[in-house]
Amino acid sequence: MSVLERLSFNQMTADPWSLEQVVRGCSRAGISTIGVWRHKLGGDTVRASAIIRDAGLRVSSLCRGGWFSAPTAVERRERIADNRLAIEEAAILGAPVLVMVCGPANGQTLNDARATVMDGLMEVLPDAEKAGVTLGVEPLHPMYAAERSVVVTLKQANDMVERLASKAAGVVVDAFHVWWDPDVMREIERARGKIVGFHVSDWPVPLPGILMGRALMGDGVIELRRLREAVDAAGYDGPIEVEIFNDAIWQSADDGLLELIRRRMVECV
Amino acid sequence: MSVLERLSFNQMTADPWSLEQVVRGCSRAGISTIGVWRHKLGGDTVRASAIIRDAGLRVSSLCRGGWFSAPTAVERRERIADNRLAIEEAAILGAPVLVMVCGPANGQTLNDARATVMDGLMEVLPDAEKAGVTLGVEPLHPMYAAERSVVVTLKQANDMVERLASKAAGVVVDAFHVWWDPDVMREIERARGKIVGFHVSDWPVPLPGILMGRALMGDGVIELRRLREAVDAAGYDGPIEVEIFNDAIWQSADDGLLELIRRRMVECV
Repeated sequence: MSVLERLSFNQMTADPWSLEQVVRGCSRAGISTIGVWRHKLGGDTVRASAIIRDAGLRVSSLCRGGWFSAPTAVERRERIADNRLAIEEAAILGAPVLVMVCGPANGQTLNDARATVMDGLMEVLPDAEKAGVTLGVEPLHPMYAAERSVVVTLKQANDMVERLASKAAGVVVDAFHVWWDPDVMREIERARGKIVGFHVSDWPVPLPGILMGRALMGDGVIELRRLREAVDAAGYDGPIEVEIFNDAIWQSADDGLLELIRRRMVECV
Repeated sequence: MSVLERLSFNQMTADPWSLEQVVRGCSRAGISTIGVWRHKLGGDTVRASAIIRDAGLRVSSLCRGGWFSAPTAVERRERIADNRLAIEEAAILGAPVLVMVCGPANGQTLNDARATVMDGLMEVLPDAEKAGVTLGVEPLHPMYAAERSVVVTLKQANDMVERLASKAAGVVVDAFHVWWDPDVMREIERARGKIVGFHVSDWPVPLPGILMGRALMGDGVIELRRLREAVDAAGYDGPIEVEIFNDAIWQSADDGLLELIRRRMVECV
């Protein structure tokens, strides 16, 4: 499949759009696959799934499970229960992958938080296996270590997935999160057979902000083609999700955005 | 020596202060060592050195050399020349270490920029050896990869220093830059005998900004004591530099700041 055929539109790239708008826009633009976020399901996963399927679209992944490292034991139990719910939602949506953003330290030491994350993954893994959903452990950029994820390198994610040793555990490679890593090529190769998602956006210079600073592919410094070719060479041939958090894109999102994304996929990815 | 006796005040912690103010403030506060920045030397290193020595203070390091990865060949020659000048300045100041911030990709690929950095270090290393100044390769946080340094992990810095294989090459461990790294403890141990600086500040949550977001020790989530003990266990017993880039601290810097820093060193580092 060509890069364009592999394009999946992650709905957070156009946050102001409802699920219906995303589905209509992607249908019109000839984009057959979308990445879905849980808080956009409107509390009715069956209905959301019907909206997507009725338009002939597929779901590449559901974002997001994880956040295991809650500050108290009670909250950690709640997080486990919520991950089980997320796995069910992914199954209903036909999403092969639940993207796992593992959670920050939240008052624990980094080592303890990392152990909590591993325990959490172990605990929900049997549910994922039963549901036919793969947990996609996504390392986040180290600048999110304090607030979002103690899993910050692909090496770390690979180590975890090796320990999980299950068909229902893999890694998600997001270019924005891993591009800086001197070991990224080695770890992509090491992830062979375990890559279950590839996300693209770009890193503009200067970066306007930590959370909302991502750019459209081609508007930054990430060697996207090199990363895509490495991921392909490691045997990944699945969807390539475009996931851009950027206020300006959100405010101006229209059909032109989808056309621009298609063009940049061909030019830059 | 106690942590307090090892305290070195990096002058960028109080950017509005002149060198004279830093020297007077540190003398009054009983801080015997300072970290100096080149752009604060006022174009007269000999005079700056006299100001510092006359007050009975020592210089722990000079910031900064590096920035090898300029976009053009001509500019790269200029950077080499500028690094030679920095080495001379360090020698005049009696600074045992020149902190190396190696530079961003600047239009090169990451691999090429990293090779350019290594070439630059190799080229100026004999000058450092002659001058009795150690080049302290400082890995920067990966969020600076695009704008400041393609050297982003302690593993990478250790690999480089191994290749340089000289008494005039070591690593600088800055807690703000390395705390998130799952391999940091292993790499600190691996750096045994090669650690030539340890810098402290803190990572507040949320981080208010990429460049100016550092906090006073104790006002963030970095496990400073654990890192300091690891660095000590790896044989480092030199100065501990307090280097905080923070607008609010800059605006309110007075003698009270130095007292607060002394207190936080004892409590948190």
